[in-house]
Amino acid sequence: MSYLPRSGPMLVDLYELTMAAGYFDHHITDDAVFSLFIRDYPADRSYFIAAGLADVLAELKDYTFSDSDLNYLKRTGFFTDPFLDGLKDFRFTGTVRAMPEGTVFFKDEPVLEISAPLIQAQLLETILLNTIGFQSVIATKAARCLHAAGGRGLIDFSARRTQGGDASLKVARSSYLAGFSSTSNVLAGKLYGIPVSGTMAHSFVTAFDTEIEAFRAFAKTYPENSVLLIDTYDTIKGAENAVKVAGEMAQKGQKLIGVRLDSGDMVDLSRRVRRILDDAGLKDVKIFASSGFDEHKISQVIEDGAQIDAFGVGTKMGVSADAPYFDIVYKMVHFKDRDIRKLSPGKVNLAGEKQVFRKTDENGNYTEDIIGLKNETPSASARPLLETVMENGKRTVSEPSLDDIKKTVRESLSKLDKPYKALKAAKAFPVTLSDRLRRVQDA
Amino acid sequence: MSYLPRSGPMLVDLYELTMAAGYFDHHITDDAVFSLFIRDYPADRSYFIAAGLADVLAELKDYTFSDSDLNYLKRTGFFTDPFLDGLKDFRFTGTVRAMPEGTVFFKDEPVLEISAPLIQAQLLETILLNTIGFQSVIATKAARCLHAAGGRGLIDFSARRTQGGDASLKVARSSYLAGFSSTSNVLAGKLYGIPVSGTMAHSFVTAFDTEIEAFRAFAKTYPENSVLLIDTYDTIKGAENAVKVAGEMAQKGQKLIGVRLDSGDMVDLSRRVRRILDDAGLKDVKIFASSGFDEHKISQVIEDGAQIDAFGVGTKMGVSADAPYFDIVYKMVHFKDRDIRKLSPGKVNLAGEKQVFRKTDENGNYTEDIIGLKNETPSASARPLLETVMENGKRTVSEPSLDDIKKTVRESLSKLDKPYKALKAAKAFPVTLSDRLRRVQDA
Repeated sequence: MSYLPRSGPMLVDLYELTMAAGYFDHHITDDAVFSLFIRDYPADRSYFIAAGLADVLAELKDYTFSDSDLNYLKRTGFFTDPFLDGLKDFRFTGTVRAMPEGTVFFKDEPVLEISAPLIQAQLLETILLNTIGFQSVIATKAARCLHAAGGRGLIDFSARRTQGGDASLKVARSSYLAGFSSTSNVLAGKLYGIPVSGTMAHSFVTAFDTEIEAFRAFAKTYPENSVLLIDTYDTIKGAENAVKVAGEMAQKGQKLIGVRLDSGDMVDLSRRVRRILDDAGLKDVKIFASSGFDEHKISQVIEDGAQIDAFGVGTKMGVSADAPYFDIVYKMVHFKDRDIRKLSPGKVNLAGEKQVFRKTDENGNYTEDIIGLKNETPSASARPLLETVMENGKRTVSEPSLDDIKKTVRESLSKLDKPYKALKAAKAFPVTLSDRLRRVQDA
Repeated sequence: MSYLPRSGPMLVDLYELTMAAGYFDHHITDDAVFSLFIRDYPADRSYFIAAGLADVLAELKDYTFSDSDLNYLKRTGFFTDPFLDGLKDFRFTGTVRAMPEGTVFFKDEPVLEISAPLIQAQLLETILLNTIGFQSVIATKAARCLHAAGGRGLIDFSARRTQGGDASLKVARSSYLAGFSSTSNVLAGKLYGIPVSGTMAHSFVTAFDTEIEAFRAFAKTYPENSVLLIDTYDTIKGAENAVKVAGEMAQKGQKLIGVRLDSGDMVDLSRRVRRILDDAGLKDVKIFASSGFDEHKISQVIEDGAQIDAFGVGTKMGVSADAPYFDIVYKMVHFKDRDIRKLSPGKVNLAGEKQVFRKTDENGNYTEDIIGLKNETPSASARPLLETVMENGKRTVSEPSLDDIKKTVRESLSKLDKPYKALKAAKAFPVTLSDRLRRVQDA
């Protein structure tokens, strides 16, 4: 049975539709501009990685209400027949300007702007916030893990504890684009072409009478692809059993790939296991580790001298446990001929249709961002980050591959100075407003 | 376009399949028993609400690999043709024993046990952990909000910031069964029959030249169903505008339902707005509030004297922000004729096929749980909580309605003493092991 990751326009807060009904009744059909941005950094963060645009554009391509949707809406009693008749022909016909997936961005910066007839632009609020918000949460968390790992491998192990099955797919994709090398999630492998990895769990070991029998059985099935889990009973004895089996494999011309630790003191155990492997001449056998890793634990065990070659990173990355959501919002910033601010306490927006301009130094390193108006050029050398990706409801650029996006992330992060990437954010990247944008706010 | 919330057996960690391939190669086809349980309480929690079983049983009913799945698996290079041929006929033919959705349960207690041929039982790990884990996380969080609200209404507003679209559906369902009255999520309304609610956002107000024009326009479209959002510019002036519009509606025989606050000091503003409404003779007009509510903020504003009739609860409930995952695990506890423990440090399991028995006092209040063996009766008066819901791969009980489950939650929570429901968990509910189960552990 195939999995369909699209939800269509019914995945919407009811008020988007009741407001639409209000606009419809009052013949309000003018174009509006809405801006999607993150109001503030959660604890420890000082940058974000944009993700989710591919899903948004896939949704918008065929964003229609089915007859069954319309029948349901009628049954709710909230809507008139003329309004529902109008929804039959509902299509997205507007313009989407967005930062490409993988772009590093900062708070207050629009990561996406929609320009469309008011009803259309309004209806997209829920799906845009949800899709870009969640996937950027995960891509950002994964990028932090990458930074902590300092070149060691990272594997997404989160499928079992993400917030639903769909979330597990988005996590596999978002962590891969942020720099993870593979995922344990088979469906994500199939859907996105991400390399899959994983070998055995404790239950495999306990299904045999002894650990070494389990190891031998697994090595027989996977003579070229075995990573043995060595902590089911006692990690050190497990390592010794793995050495025995590696020796037996070597006699057949086979090679053990690695061992995995999943509990206990990772620093001490990894060092002892490394020594056991090295003493047996198994310098190429890698040590994988899993169990509660996130960027902080990865950084800590490396600092403490752990001898780990790759980390399986699961739950805490897969739900972004310390920051499971961003304060991402979608606000009308222009309507008819007016730039619009909302003035509720603590919830001020930047009015106007905008662009984000990035300044770099002579080495290409990021020095400053300027949020300006869409049609200005506040600095000749600054590069605009928002690209038009959809016009009149049609895509205007081709979809980058996941590996292209991965490259974007890698390059972007290499141009961001270290203090902004610290696990405990040390300082905020300078983001200023252009004079023209500032004047719009004061108007 | 319709939404398909099922994922099938490809939503699985690769190692479940590589282990299965190992079992296949070694002709290991014996039955195993696996136990699903939560190892510990996250901060502040002292009980859990079981949720997600309906989705699990729906998945298992038709748990098959498609040709395209098998082709993908072949391409990964991990599997032999004989193994993949075997997967063509893969079906779930085992037994599922589970606590009904809505059951209150505690740490270490199996919320579900699977008895099935080893490969089948093993393959279910990812989907069981993900489905029951996530939905129980949300049902538990929502039950805490319900407790804090003390009878006031709760509406799920989380769709925009859940971890994906599928998550938003599961959150709507899990919060509804835990006692929420409705959801803003239209697709959840359609799929689950949950009442939907919601009226207007700030963008509606800013789409008109003045706030009162926006209110009048909305009241015209929704003469019987308007809740006016009054904080776009100034909450007190917004309340005064709402009073004016309510007066105009009254002259036409219409009635304003309520006003909504979405920013600022909720205690002070709700009291001032209540006075403004009451002074205008609008005692029936309700005050709704939203903006960052969770159980703690709800409890705080009520304690501080807020005059709020119903809360829109969004992000923090929808991702269970303070505890976005449970330490839920799925462990083999019996295989062939052996009861199985795993002994890794800090990760000990209870061996044996189990049952949970609940003791109550003369008023039906919960006094103690006993985890025992499946086939024992440790106490004549204790009620077993795990029911057989599937046998030989077929459902053995009919699916309860969502409102039946809601009733189960309400009744269960009413029988749980207050200290266990405190927002800062005061003490742990007594859970003991039966003598016979204890002997199995010591064997």
